[in-house]
Formats: sequence, C-alpha cells, structure tokens
Amino acid sequence: MVQNKSIIFLKHPTEFPVVGEHFEVQTKELNVTLAPSDVLVKNLFISLDPYMRGRMRNTDKSYTAGFQLGHVLNGGGVSEVIESKNDAFPVGTIVTGFVGWEQFSHVPGAQGLRALPNARTSPIPLSAYIGVLGMPGMTASLKIIGQPKKGETIFISAAAGAVGQLVGQMAKQQGLRVIGSVGRDDKVDYLINELKFDAAFNYKKGNILENLKSLAPEGIDIYYENVGGETLEAALEVMNTHGRVIACGMISQYNTQTPYGIRNLTHVVGKRITIRGFIVSDFAAECGADFARDVGSWLVKGEIIYKEDITEGIENAPDAFIGMLNGRNFGKAVVKIADL
Amino acid sequence: MVQNKSIIFLKHPTEFPVVGEHFEVQTKELNVTLAPSDVLVKNLFISLDPYMRGRMRNTDKSYTAGFQLGHVLNGGGVSEVIESKNDAFPVGTIVTGFVGWEQFSHVPGAQGLRALPNARTSPIPLSAYIGVLGMPGMTASLKIIGQPKKGETIFISAAAGAVGQLVGQMAKQQGLRVIGSVGRDDKVDYLINELKFDAAFNYKKGNILENLKSLAPEGIDIYYENVGGETLEAALEVMNTHGRVIACGMISQYNTQTPYGIRNLTHVVGKRITIRGFIVSDFAAECGADFARDVGSWLVKGEIIYKEDITEGIENAPDAFIGMLNGRNFGKAVVKIADL
Repeated sequence: MVQNKSIIFLKHPTEFPVVGEHFEVQTKELNVTLAPSDVLVKNLFISLDPYMRGRMRNTDKSYTAGFQLGHVLNGGGVSEVIESKNDAFPVGTIVTGFVGWEQFSHVPGAQGLRALPNARTSPIPLSAYIGVLGMPGMTASLKIIGQPKKGETIFISAAAGAVGQLVGQMAKQQGLRVIGSVGRDDKVDYLINELKFDAAFNYKKGNILENLKSLAPEGIDIYYENVGGETLEAALEVMNTHGRVIACGMISQYNTQTPYGIRNLTHVVGKRITIRGFIVSDFAAECGADFARDVGSWLVKGEIIYKEDITEGIENAPDAFIGMLNGRNFGKAVVKIADL
Repeated sequence: MVQNKSIIFLKHPTEFPVVGEHFEVQTKELNVTLAPSDVLVKNLFISLDPYMRGRMRNTDKSYTAGFQLGHVLNGGGVSEVIESKNDAFPVGTIVTGFVGWEQFSHVPGAQGLRALPNARTSPIPLSAYIGVLGMPGMTASLKIIGQPKKGETIFISAAAGAVGQLVGQMAKQQGLRVIGSVGRDDKVDYLINELKFDAAFNYKKGNILENLKSLAPEGIDIYYENVGGETLEAALEVMNTHGRVIACGMISQYNTQTPYGIRNLTHVVGKRITIRGFIVSDFAAECGADFARDVGSWLVKGEIIYKEDITEGIENAPDAFIGMLNGRNFGKAVVKIADL
C-alpha cells in the first residue's frame, strides 16, 4: 500500500505555532476511490505563505476560511495528476491550485485546479507557479494600488521575501527609487547587488526610523507594507504628503498577543496619507492576464530574478513554516515534496 | 483713536494650550495706512477649528503654515470692509476669508477675501459662511472619498461638531444607517432627536468598543474619523470587509505627548480596509461649486440643521478655543466679534 504523509492541524496557536502542539506529521494509507470528475494528484511543491498564519486563528473573521482542527493544512501547490476521472485533467497533467500539505491529494471535481500545459517543457521551474508566477507574484501588484510615479521613492519591508523582492524589481522598472528592509546582512547584500535596490538596511541593526531617515532624506512616497509594527510607524514618520501605504501584510503582528501600538496615525490626516489593505483575489480578475504575460516574459528573459528558499520533504514543512514566520527563509518559502 | 484687541501667539504648546502662557489678549492702537488694493475690515465672526492646533506646533511639517510667535493668530472669518483702496471690495462689502483673531484686520491686496454680495439680504446667518457653508461644511465631503452605498452603516465621531453633524445628515440623505459618538448626553439627544441619527452614544460612558458593537451589530462600512485614539481602534475592530476610514481629524491626539497606540491595524490587511486622510483644499476645486449649491439650498429649505456654539467677544476666543479642543462646544465653534 502507498503511504500518504501529511501535516495535520491540531490546535489554534495564539503566538508562534509549535510543531507537535499546533500541527504534526501523520502518515496514513492512501485509500482513495475517485468519483466522476475527481482526480488524485501527487504534490510536487507546496507554498508556505504568511497569510496562512491568519487561517490558524480561532475566528470566523479572517479573510480566508480558517483551517479545520484535525484536518490536513492546505494551500497553493504544484502537482501531477496520477489518477483521473476528469477528461480536462488526464493522468500526467501538471496542475496548480489548492492542495493539502501532504504527498497525495484527492481533489473532488478537480476543483480549483488549473492545468499548466507547457510546464514540462518550459525553462521556468515548476516551483515558480506558486511563487513569482503565482499568488505571491500577483500580490506584488504595485501598479494597481500604489499609483507610482517615476522619480518617487518606495520603501519595501520584508524586501527579500516572496512578494517584496518582486515589488522592488517592478518598482525599479518603473523608475522609482527603491529602499528595502530585511532582517539579515546577506539579504541586504542581495537587495543591493542582485536586485539593484538603491538602498537597503537590516532592521535588526540600529533604529529603524534613523535608518530610514538616513536612506530616504527626501522622505518616501510609497510604503509597501509587509511587516507592520515599528516599521510601519517609522514609515509613516518619514512619509511625504499624499504618501500611500500598500498594506499587503503585517507579519510582525501575527504571532503575538501584545501587538505593537502605532502612535503616529495623525500623520494620515496631516500628510493626507492613504493606507490601503488588499488581498490578491480582489484584483485577480482585473489584472491576472497582464500579470501572467508580463512577469512570465520578464522571467524567461532574465529581466527579473526570483529567489526561492526550498525545503525538502513534507515532514519538514511545519518547521519551515515557523522559520518563515521568523524570517529565517531567504526568498520565497517553498516545500519540495517530490520530483516530477 | 480706535483700539484693536487681538490674540497674540506666545509659545508653542506641547499639550493643551494655556491662556496667558501660549496666547494672550493684547490691545493696540489701530494705525493703518492702506496701499493700493488694500482693504481694512471689521471682523464680525471668526472660526475656531481643530486644525488650528496643528498650526501651533513647533514644526515646519504641518500641512498648513505654522503660527508665528509674537504675531496675531489667524483663520477663517466673516468681515465688513470699512476702508478700501480696492475697487472689487468697496466699503460696506461683506467678505469671507483669512483674517486675524482681532477686531480689525488690514488685508494687503484684499488677498484671499471673497465677497458675499447677497449676505446682507440672505436669510442665512453670516456665521454660516465660516461653518456649514465654509471650510467645515466643505470638509464634510462624504460623497467624495467615502463612496457610500445605500444601506451601508457609517459611524461618525465628534458627531455633533462642525463637520460631524453635517456628515451625519448628508449620510442620512444618501440612505445610510448613521451612528454617532459624542462626549455629552445632551449631544446624544441632539443627534437622535434633531438630526435623526439612527443611533448615538456618549463615549465617556461605558466602553467605546462595546457601545459600537451593540449599536452596530452588523458592523460598520464607513468610519468618519474626527477623534483618533481608542475610538479609531474600536472602529477598526467592528469594521466590515472593504470598510473605509475617512480620516478628517484626530483631535484626541493633538494635545498630548503620549499618543494612543493603535494595536489592531492588521485589520487593514485582513478586512481590506482603506484609510484615507485628506484636507478640504484637496477637493475645493473639484467640488466647491456643487457643495455651495447643494448645501446652501438645503439650508434655506430647512433640509439640514446646523448648530453653532457662538462665543461673544474677541477676548474670549482663547478660552473658547481650548474649550473646543476639550469638546466643550456644542456645535460649530465660532467667536462673534462685532455686529454688522
């Protein structure tokens, strides 16, 4: 019999999740009977994303449905169809869509799966479909809500992460001055030397506000917000009149019961700042086609770089997830479960 | 000789300004020689507005120029031209514009003054031109940035104030459910019984969040923000997906050196909230004509009510200003300096 190793959600964490307490690896026999339209997929890669932490909260108010206790975690993945009762997804099809954190997923009606017909022959690695060409890439939708103008300055936090690194490169393409913050010196080097950011700093060294002030003496016009807390406060402090905060995430606030209080929101009035939260699905219909064409082509031509942090083995997914919440990943966090 | 009583700015306050320390009454002889295009006006009413507190700060970063130490304070007023070397403003003209907190103002080139040709015969009281028909009324520009939809719920803080009372009535006209917060029970009664708000509460009684939860069991869609601090935090907590915060002011934070830290901005991401700061001059060109026509006609027809809190005598302006910062005024704060 084939075994199916999976990650089961055990308990709602209130701070950082702990392996064994909030989720754990379980192995069960794979025993699936497909109904008409169903497929069975072998998962190749799964995506680890900060928003998943929100799905672990014990609330019905998160923007995505919460994970169910006792069930397998799920998220974006790239998979191969290995059994099929669905003509649109014959055996051998490479797909992307929502799958479990497990080796094999039974997908009733192949729901939410999208075939990737050229994936086997494309020079693009399969993991890109859950990264630069997937939800995180699409999220870097700077053009949509930041209204960047050439010559403006953008500040990006978590700038070497799944979203930040792409935002920075897109901003450079559009003629912006780009400043990034990260939590490690090698990430600072990456931003400056590989991604050609204009400036970058390690937020763990020195004072965030002082760093920003010295790197953005003319102030910032756009803040691409991935971390929240003290970094947001500093960004508001140096923001120019009519500045915009693109609120993509606030990862520093996800794993604490004593959130940081932002004390300078009066700047929102005085400087006429707009802070806008969004999730990628708000824009998918409007911008999906442009995005896939542009970013796919830049990637193939080498006009953008996209760094991934790949963990091998489904059993290591919980630890890799916690690492991502701590900023231990360098690049988009992905788990490789199997070879094609 | 004619005496000119005026209010002089003495010192930048860091918390609530104090009469005698930060500003004081001074009387000097009126001794003016008009150059070509100049006018001398007798001030009838001056406007007291929360934004003026920002002009008292010791910074060059406020959105309006700071008050100058040793000089007379200034702001919106309604005045009568009593000497003129400007053909556009003959003696007897009623004008509105920026004037000093003083009995008589010399306005070089009549700069910034606007004649009110019908003011003497109109049923509209002169003070309205610095209130419901002036900057505060224009600021209540709900239509512009809140994108209200019929059936939505709006929450307005400082709802009996210069801006709030008008926002509430405009929101009712547009079919919204309207909830207001104020700091006194008689203001609660006014909102409910006179302005026909759907609900209102005294933020000094009980917990703000609990009050809001019980009055807005379906959540709020728009928050018209005048106060900041704990009220903003509560509003974010009960806000619905795609909610909007119209950030007009944050008066609770203007007179303190220990600002309130907002701990739940992660809702901006999770609920895709937009928070937008603005000042009225951003929209004056676009919306001024519509505004003057609509609000003026509603006022004459009695379709809107506008309560003013009129203090008599220029010498009482400093105390009235401090009272407004404390919420002691009931309606738009105005100082009457002289009869026409």
